[in-house]
Amino acid sequence: MNTNPKIAVFGGGSWATAIVKMLSENLEQVGWYMRSQSAIDYIKENDHNPNYISSATFNVNQLYLSSDINEMVKYADILIFSIPSAFVKTELDKITEPFTSKIVFSAIKGIIPESGLIVGEHFNKILNVPIENIGVITGPCHAEEVAMERLSYLTIACKDEEKAKLVSKFISSHYIKTKISDDIIGAEYAAMLKNIYAIAAGIAHGLGYGDNFQAVLMSNSIREIKRFIKKVHRMKRNINNSAYLGDLLVTGYSVFSRNRMFGNMIGKGYTVKSAMMEMSMVAEGYYATKSAYLLNEKNNTKTPIIDAVYQILYENKNPKTIFKNLTELID
Amino acid sequence: MNTNPKIAVFGGGSWATAIVKMLSENLEQVGWYMRSQSAIDYIKENDHNPNYISSATFNVNQLYLSSDINEMVKYADILIFSIPSAFVKTELDKITEPFTSKIVFSAIKGIIPESGLIVGEHFNKILNVPIENIGVITGPCHAEEVAMERLSYLTIACKDEEKAKLVSKFISSHYIKTKISDDIIGAEYAAMLKNIYAIAAGIAHGLGYGDNFQAVLMSNSIREIKRFIKKVHRMKRNINNSAYLGDLLVTGYSVFSRNRMFGNMIGKGYTVKSAMMEMSMVAEGYYATKSAYLLNEKNNTKTPIIDAVYQILYENKNPKTIFKNLTELID
Repeated sequence: MNTNPKIAVFGGGSWATAIVKMLSENLEQVGWYMRSQSAIDYIKENDHNPNYISSATFNVNQLYLSSDINEMVKYADILIFSIPSAFVKTELDKITEPFTSKIVFSAIKGIIPESGLIVGEHFNKILNVPIENIGVITGPCHAEEVAMERLSYLTIACKDEEKAKLVSKFISSHYIKTKISDDIIGAEYAAMLKNIYAIAAGIAHGLGYGDNFQAVLMSNSIREIKRFIKKVHRMKRNINNSAYLGDLLVTGYSVFSRNRMFGNMIGKGYTVKSAMMEMSMVAEGYYATKSAYLLNEKNNTKTPIIDAVYQILYENKNPKTIFKNLTELID
Repeated sequence: MNTNPKIAVFGGGSWATAIVKMLSENLEQVGWYMRSQSAIDYIKENDHNPNYISSATFNVNQLYLSSDINEMVKYADILIFSIPSAFVKTELDKITEPFTSKIVFSAIKGIIPESGLIVGEHFNKILNVPIENIGVITGPCHAEEVAMERLSYLTIACKDEEKAKLVSKFISSHYIKTKISDDIIGAEYAAMLKNIYAIAAGIAHGLGYGDNFQAVLMSNSIREIKRFIKKVHRMKRNINNSAYLGDLLVTGYSVFSRNRMFGNMIGKGYTVKSAMMEMSMVAEGYYATKSAYLLNEKNNTKTPIIDAVYQILYENKNPKTIFKNLTELID
């Protein structure tokens, strides 16, 4: 294994920007693919992303920027994807360069709608990347706090421990501590599922439920996550590790979480459509809710919270009634 | 068992007041012992506690109030204690009425400093109350939200399931849901320990650590609680149930928690003494830290967070240095 690999980040959002910042602490050069050429031009001129965590500044000479995804695939040995799951397939479809020999890490929290697979599975099953070349980078981590260099802990998961260690080395710094794991499937599902519970937390808040209920909701959420992941991929894991419980908490308790904000608007009476328009974006958890619900129709795990969010978002059910019902199903 | 028992609450604080309110929803008469005769006089005149959750109003005709603890012990079949652990022994020492045949529930979150025992154990070992007559009422529950009648879930633990059910029945209402459990020892330890982690959360916040770190701290806290309780009382329990994890979260994430507030002042540079004076009260977690630390010297469980809080509060160590060290011990 090349111990001095070229690494590139794919994505232009806040989490992608945060990962570029982390890598910049250790690498002489960081590849950064963004779809938007104007964003790239802006960064070259102003040393920061115009749209996301703009307080994070870069030494532009250290960045290898391109809006040509094939150029970036060719450049890098390790590819870190951080694109909203809804757009991943469109981006991957552009790739003509071979990348089955690349190491691919996902920092995406979601299911790819077109395949119904989490990102690691998608790379493996659809794009034939060997499973030992696939990894996951997961929180608990708000990108905004990375910009402020506040101490954060990340989990780097890969079946091949050496690759997890290698990526950990390049991600770690005085404000980033890393832990390695071999649970790529569980880590990705947890990262995806937590957004659904953040929406639930937001809905509860919007409906007027208080902190006492919120604590019960989170306690039930982590138990639901455990059941869900156990069914999808049974292995020994401590669901209370930071990658699972920590990631749930940082999202569920954050007023900055877009998923929680989206849920809050739904709880306050906005329609799904108007909440999305108001936010001028789609919360990851919106897609995750449908994917998780459909997956669970097969798996048949008891997931009253996912079911409640699904009924509200996709079946146009009344949040107040659904949550009243939910209060009888959790404990 | 008397299915129509007389019930009395012992204590004048916010949690005692909240429990009286809960019982008032179901009982024709609720006994309420408070040490302060002037508080009793105030309640009789103004229908609410002068000092705590004053928005909770009572029908005074429904209350059997007394500042004579023996009168109240004599009155009640079921005694619910909700007195700060530091004052429990002083109060209990006043009792001359026999009460070994009474059913005793603890809603106290702490260790009795004089005996080093949690309240249930103290009643059992020191006061010879049979173990099957001892129970615990535990959160996650801010008293303030009970006053607002916001939906809250309580766990009622007793070795004797029938007694847990009986108390549950009298506590439940349109805003209180209850769950029964037989884990009186675990529930009490968790209720006590969570205050230490709330202090830790406050210290971290005071020192400038952000939400990302907070999530990691809570994720490590619940693992520490699990290890601690397992050593003290091994039995099958799901540490992610509301009585354990929920109770930790409602305290650790609440800006209203006195323990968190106390920690926050310590993190910001107050001395322990000045923080206590500023708050004009002692946070339960202050005592709990010492008790848990001493207990753990025997049990030898890995508890880096308890150790850190102990060193700061009792060994006058610098919070910044201790927490910097702690960041290396958690993950």
